[in-house]
Amino acid sequence: MLTEFDTSLPSIKQVQKLIKENTSVELKLITGDIIAGTVLWQDSQCFCVMEKDNQKITVWKQAIAYLRQ
Amino acid sequence: MLTEFDTSLPSIKQVQKLIKENTSVELKLITGDIIAGTVLWQDSQCFCVMEKDNQKITVWKQAIAYLRQ
Amino acid sequence: MLTEFDTSLPSIKQVQKLIKENTSVELKLITGDIIAGTVLWQDSQCFCVMEKDNQKITVWKQAIAYLRQ
Amino acid sequence: MLTEFDTSLPSIKQVQKLIKENTSVELKLITGDIIAGTVLWQDSQCFCVMEKDNQKITVWKQAIAYLRQ
Amino acid sequence: MLTEFDTSLPSIKQVQKLIKENTSVELKLITGDIIAGTVLWQDSQCFCVMEKDNQKITVWKQAIAYLRQ
Amino acid sequence: MLTEFDTSLPSIKQVQKLIKENTSVELKLITGDIIAGTVLWQDSQCFCVMEKDNQKITVWKQAIAYLRQ
Repeated sequence: MLTEFDTSLPSIKQVQKLIKENTSVELKLITGDIIAGTVLWQDSQCFCVMEKDNQKITVWKQAIAYLRQ
Repeated sequence: MLTEFDTSLPSIKQVQKLIKENTSVELKLITGDIIAGTVLWQDSQCFCVMEKDNQKITVWKQAIAYLRQ
Repeated sequence: MLTEFDTSLPSIKQVQKLIKENTSVELKLITGDIIAGTVLWQDSQCFCVMEKDNQKITVWKQAIAYLRQ
Repeated sequence: MLTEFDTSLPSIKQVQKLIKENTSVELKLITGDIIAGTVLWQDSQCFCVMEKDNQKITVWKQAIAYLRQ
Repeated sequence: MLTEFDTSLPSIKQVQKLIKENTSVELKLITGDIIAGTVLWQDSQCFCVMEKDNQKITVWKQAIAYLRQ
Repeated sequence: MLTEFDTSLPSIKQVQKLIKENTSVELKLITGDIIAGTVLWQDSQCFCVMEKDNQKITVWKQAIAYLRQ
């Protein structure tokens, strides 16, 4: 289950780095949607992403297939 | 699993704020459905949303892909 | 995970009320199916619904996207 | 999670009754498949169903949307 | 969650038997894929299957709908 | 749940071997996507894969159907 928020996990640390460096990412969701923008924050259940049009979107981690930088 | 209801989580706090401020949101579900309205309440498993036609709909968090404000 | 059956949860209480008041509901499933009828009982994993043609159907909560009254 | 096998649950007891009474059922899966037959046994993760052509099929509970009798 | 590997479960024992007897099986996945071959090993998260063309494939149990012998 | 990272599991050990030997793999996701490349690291929630065009992609294990070598 994705409610474990173990900051020692490489995958969690990787996203913390992306947040710190304000790196643009693409999230592919299991719905087929692709969310592009920069990650503002993450917790055990969600990412909050600032999209290109400065709109904030909260993505549930359960729906994520992959992340590309 | 989404039955953890940790009110210190940013994602839970974000929705509490949306409820308090009666903010309109759009929930995209993994079925492709988009539910628009204001969130009345949330618990560890569901959101209750008041839709535009004043109809109440209970959305299972397990089926949510993302939330837009 | 949906095996937590915490009767203090608003979402569980809401369905208990629907059962008590024999309210007609529509359940949208992640398969796209819509199950219409009245909820007979619920437990941590399933709803049992009496459909319009008096047929009983057991729906796994894991497959539910939303419930409309 | 569906690895809880609490035989006091109505949904588990319902299936135990279907097994005992050799009742024909239809299982709708999230793949869209419909499995028809009689349930031979169940555990926390699976049902074993005897299909009409006397073929045994093991269905993972995680993939079940609903059961009709 | 499928990380429970309780070897007393009928469904786990069934697959152990299939492995021992080198029985050909078909796994239907929630992607619609059908994987045919013999099961080499299983753990709490995966099956390893030897396909007909002697290629090894690791299937995540989370993605399995059903198994036919 | 896939947050259990038990390095004694055959499926975890298999991927550790693929990482060590820099073996090319194909991951089929439940979205239908096929991710090809070499696995750089894994944790309880994700794989990080170096794709053919030297792009890094983080795949959530929850979205994986199978892995071919």
